[in-house]
Amino acid sequence: MKQNLEIQIENIAKLAQAASRSLAALPSTVKNAVLEDFASALLSNQAVILKANQKDISESPGKGKAFIDRLSLDEARIKQMADSLLDIAKLKDPVDEVMRAWNTPGGLNIQKARVPIGVVAIIYESRPNVTADCIGLCFKSGNSVILRGGSEALNSNLAIFNVAKEVMQKHSLAEGAINLIATTNRQAIGYLLKLNDYIDVVIPRGGEGLIKKVVRASVIPVIKHSKGICHVYVDLDADLNMAQNICWNAKCQRPGVCNAMESMLVHRDVAARFLPGMLKKFKEAGVQIRGCALTRDIASWAKQATAKDYRTEYSDLILSVKVVDDLDAAIAHINDYGSHHSDSIVTDNNDTAAKFLKQIDSACVYLNASTRFTDGNQFGMGAEIGISTGKLHARGPMGLEELTTYKYLVYGSGQVRV
Amino acid sequence: MKQNLEIQIENIAKLAQAASRSLAALPSTVKNAVLEDFASALLSNQAVILKANQKDISESPGKGKAFIDRLSLDEARIKQMADSLLDIAKLKDPVDEVMRAWNTPGGLNIQKARVPIGVVAIIYESRPNVTADCIGLCFKSGNSVILRGGSEALNSNLAIFNVAKEVMQKHSLAEGAINLIATTNRQAIGYLLKLNDYIDVVIPRGGEGLIKKVVRASVIPVIKHSKGICHVYVDLDADLNMAQNICWNAKCQRPGVCNAMESMLVHRDVAARFLPGMLKKFKEAGVQIRGCALTRDIASWAKQATAKDYRTEYSDLILSVKVVDDLDAAIAHINDYGSHHSDSIVTDNNDTAAKFLKQIDSACVYLNASTRFTDGNQFGMGAEIGISTGKLHARGPMGLEELTTYKYLVYGSGQVRV
Repeated sequence: MKQNLEIQIENIAKLAQAASRSLAALPSTVKNAVLEDFASALLSNQAVILKANQKDISESPGKGKAFIDRLSLDEARIKQMADSLLDIAKLKDPVDEVMRAWNTPGGLNIQKARVPIGVVAIIYESRPNVTADCIGLCFKSGNSVILRGGSEALNSNLAIFNVAKEVMQKHSLAEGAINLIATTNRQAIGYLLKLNDYIDVVIPRGGEGLIKKVVRASVIPVIKHSKGICHVYVDLDADLNMAQNICWNAKCQRPGVCNAMESMLVHRDVAARFLPGMLKKFKEAGVQIRGCALTRDIASWAKQATAKDYRTEYSDLILSVKVVDDLDAAIAHINDYGSHHSDSIVTDNNDTAAKFLKQIDSACVYLNASTRFTDGNQFGMGAEIGISTGKLHARGPMGLEELTTYKYLVYGSGQVRV
Repeated sequence: MKQNLEIQIENIAKLAQAASRSLAALPSTVKNAVLEDFASALLSNQAVILKANQKDISESPGKGKAFIDRLSLDEARIKQMADSLLDIAKLKDPVDEVMRAWNTPGGLNIQKARVPIGVVAIIYESRPNVTADCIGLCFKSGNSVILRGGSEALNSNLAIFNVAKEVMQKHSLAEGAINLIATTNRQAIGYLLKLNDYIDVVIPRGGEGLIKKVVRASVIPVIKHSKGICHVYVDLDADLNMAQNICWNAKCQRPGVCNAMESMLVHRDVAARFLPGMLKKFKEAGVQIRGCALTRDIASWAKQATAKDYRTEYSDLILSVKVVDDLDAAIAHINDYGSHHSDSIVTDNNDTAAKFLKQIDSACVYLNASTRFTDGNQFGMGAEIGISTGKLHARGPMGLEELTTYKYLVYGSGQVRV
């Protein structure tokens, strides 16, 4: 017999699917009005949200500074959440766009039309701002959403969710359009991941452990938003000043994010010219270096890197460094040790650049630029639900368009197959 | 400790991934030459292939006529396989196509470029011609392929595969470009589905049992090619002659395929005018009818339909029939009982048509045409690997383009994020 929680989760998914049918037909003007009202309501309910957030923070002692920083809300952050919703309202609605249309010799008119995916489940870390962003992006793209945020942010998420819910009710929208799984019981995720009759895609954002667990347990298609082990490779033919700027930016400008550089590769023939100045600069910025033997010949103060270091997303002022024999070695290392997120080469050699761009198997491959640009806003897509590190359906920054699929509309006048 | 078979499967997957790196860079001219050579070699090795096929057939007694028909090869079918490869050689190579390119305000040039998915595993029924088609399509789209065909076709598949292998070797292509799991041990699939470090997508084609098993066991993303429970809905405002032609074609022209009609829905206000003639025609064609109570009021000879009937892909001269109250009831029935493959409405009412096309949640939705057109060739894509009944990445007919993904190539001149 099914447990109470299992039945609850199933009911949420059923309501979400029912709502998705009507959301798919909602005009952009209505969707935008709802988003604007949600933005205003966040501001007018600021006190309630901040109080709930204070409760979350007070119940998370000993969680570490970075964790508490991601969990914390203040007036400025609530303003950011509201502004983000207003930005989403301004973005072009992808639904119903005819991607391609053609006529067959038999006289059928075929239209490949963009439609919402249906029901999107998102499992994410304890960052309350993600709750508002995900509601905004899924709603604008015509999808029902089922949210499961980190347990430590439950009160904040509920407060934000209730504000959205009230706005949805005011606009008489279907009950299941937005859903929050408001329990810290971990079994809830297990139940959710079995419901492929109702849920069309699950997007897990977070650490490797969570992603692996979701991939293993889910019968629903998964678009994973996993770690970013991003590389910059400083080539034999690099402009070494440019390389220094790019590497410094990729590591230090915001080390806690997934598009920051975690590993720096240097061609052996420029190592002696490049590394001393670069490593000195990193040392001054407080970056801890974990290097290969050749790196440590140049900077004896650096720690020895292990194989594990080259597979680690530090999200911190720590950098693994490796001197490589040539371009092929750099490419092989990145494809093997990286996470297929964002990788960059610094070189003035066109042939070298072309080979790197072609052979690196990552969502975003850069020539002479910092990996830090992998971001929906930087790419001009507007807000993003995250960065997909999978290869199917969506790769890299995932915005409104990536929250849609398509169907073929075929217009005939009595055609039959002969 | 890993078993022998598990290690073998893992080695196949590793070689496939290694090969995929070089396949991604192979020029179209080389790929087309290989495909043409493969086509010739199939013809010149006809005797060997037919002998292997005879062995398969003789080892499959009592398997039923339709099964043996799908398993059997003859000169004409080998010619078809060869022609299909020549067709694939003529199709436009999707790899490296720039899907979109733009400049950011900061001066980055971003190109969204089509690239092969990488390693594609295909699990399919006992149809040897699929072996050649899948090799052709995956190779042309720059992917390594791992094939696991039905056990009963193993000798035929091996014979075809060996012909392809020899051609690949003649052209000095990487060993892992094409792979066949040449064992009837069912554990092989279980091992295969765990290898998400090497395999990028698995495409199961076949019955519901196989699809469910693969979806449950796989940690690799799955693009399912499941059953087609296709509907034609005859509306209140239908041209009833047209409706009769379309329904007859959708059911009878080739009942064994996935885009044939399995269920016919009729608006109650036209049932008395439409059903008597239509059902008589079906009866004459040997179609067994399983109808609702209202259907049986008109045709008392029809069997009573059960709820299970409406969820069944007969792939045969059997049809479930239901009289519905209105358009909404038709839409609800199709979205609930159907398989999201291909569904058609016959109507002259534009508003009714628009609502049906919008609200039916299927890969292909037709107005005034037979469902039988859901097919890569009919859609003008050329050969297809199958029809995806999932919503992510590829929906409906899946040709060369759907065997690719994309990556972002970002060209800078020293840009860093501020």
